[in-house]
Amino acid sequence: MPVTQPHAPVPLLEGLATTRTIRRYTDEPIPDDDLAAILWHATRAPSGSNRQPVRYLVLRDGAAALQARALLGNSFRTSWAAKRAADGYVPDAATDDTVADDTVADTPKARMAATMQHFVDHLESVPAIVLVCLQRYRGPNPYEGASVYPAAQNLLLAARAMGYGGALTMWHQMVEPQLRELLAVPDEVALSACITLGRPAGSHGPVRRRPLHDVVFQDRWGDSPTWAVDPPGTEHTHWK
Amino acid sequence: MPVTQPHAPVPLLEGLATTRTIRRYTDEPIPDDDLAAILWHATRAPSGSNRQPVRYLVLRDGAAALQARALLGNSFRTSWAAKRAADGYVPDAATDDTVADDTVADTPKARMAATMQHFVDHLESVPAIVLVCLQRYRGPNPYEGASVYPAAQNLLLAARAMGYGGALTMWHQMVEPQLRELLAVPDEVALSACITLGRPAGSHGPVRRRPLHDVVFQDRWGDSPTWAVDPPGTEHTHWK
Repeated sequence: MPVTQPHAPVPLLEGLATTRTIRRYTDEPIPDDDLAAILWHATRAPSGSNRQPVRYLVLRDGAAALQARALLGNSFRTSWAAKRAADGYVPDAATDDTVADDTVADTPKARMAATMQHFVDHLESVPAIVLVCLQRYRGPNPYEGASVYPAAQNLLLAARAMGYGGALTMWHQMVEPQLRELLAVPDEVALSACITLGRPAGSHGPVRRRPLHDVVFQDRWGDSPTWAVDPPGTEHTHWK
Repeated sequence: MPVTQPHAPVPLLEGLATTRTIRRYTDEPIPDDDLAAILWHATRAPSGSNRQPVRYLVLRDGAAALQARALLGNSFRTSWAAKRAADGYVPDAATDDTVADDTVADTPKARMAATMQHFVDHLESVPAIVLVCLQRYRGPNPYEGASVYPAAQNLLLAARAMGYGGALTMWHQMVEPQLRELLAVPDEVALSACITLGRPAGSHGPVRRRPLHDVVFQDRWGDSPTWAVDPPGTEHTHWK
């Protein structure tokens, strides 16, 4: 594809294995062409009946974007402070399961809390924010995500391919009414995800997950087949 | 990653751009190691709080799998026949929007109808079927898909990387009660998607989508920025 790739191309399997949530960004802006390429690859994802109901509402440095960032920043900070307090999520007494994505188990808990705090404290200066929206053609239902979250994942993978990183969060939901009014989002449109994007600051560990035999069954719920084993050499990616 | 790759590695961006729904498969089975690698890469997707609520219930050639395939085959054929009739979906009077994924607009409509018919007629012999399941920790909601469909997309992309292809469908829903009983699926688990997998038979056209300026907005719903243009050389992928 005729898009900017600052490094050697990342192989597809390697990209799938190494795309993790990125919450610390450099100040470097995302050029128009790169952002267009990231979003174009997001649109390649499948959707039910190929209806293509996903829309991407991008916030950068326009006047409305700055207002939206202020709303989101306050919301993210309030959400994180509440979670941190409610879950005892402090450096010396951290628990899992307290934040909305997958670096939780990827770093020592104190560092994780610091990363979260940094993330919410810098939301106003994240290079780009993309609200991934679903133009509904019927009422809300638990399976509608089949037509929107594959695109969100493609977006994150495309960002990774081009040297960027992102975080998919749902913390926009606390200010959703204000966001809708500010950005003129129609009632039938769902704000399905809020993705932050930028050039990663610092280095990042591997994605950590449960071993395959815990999550793959064959023929009957709970029956893990003997072949459901992690590929050789990936033991370091085990979660917990 | 130490997995089978029959061809040169597919670059990540190219993989995102060229992974399309595949509904015709050769008879070639999917070896255990390949299936494990595909599923392992699916598990690398993010989930809310890194809860990792996705489970993969695989149907191949076991006794329960054969019963499940019979249920699914009948369901898919009934669903397709009804849609085909209701929507006038015959070679000379086809309409869009009649099937549950993205080859609809990718082929001449007569060929598409033939592909759908072939797909539902051969469900019993698809090399593998994966029910992608969500272990819920709260009631069903429209945003729960954020923790399951990114994994489904990773699964399809990993299959592509390894020379396989698949189709994500929701046509299992018509026989869901019977499937749940047969496969002992607990009540709190959602059957979020049914993915068929196999080695693609024949060649396949490009993924076709709306142009970027139709789906990308900046600062305000409906306002497409000047930079939201498809990458040069991709005009042939425009939908309609």
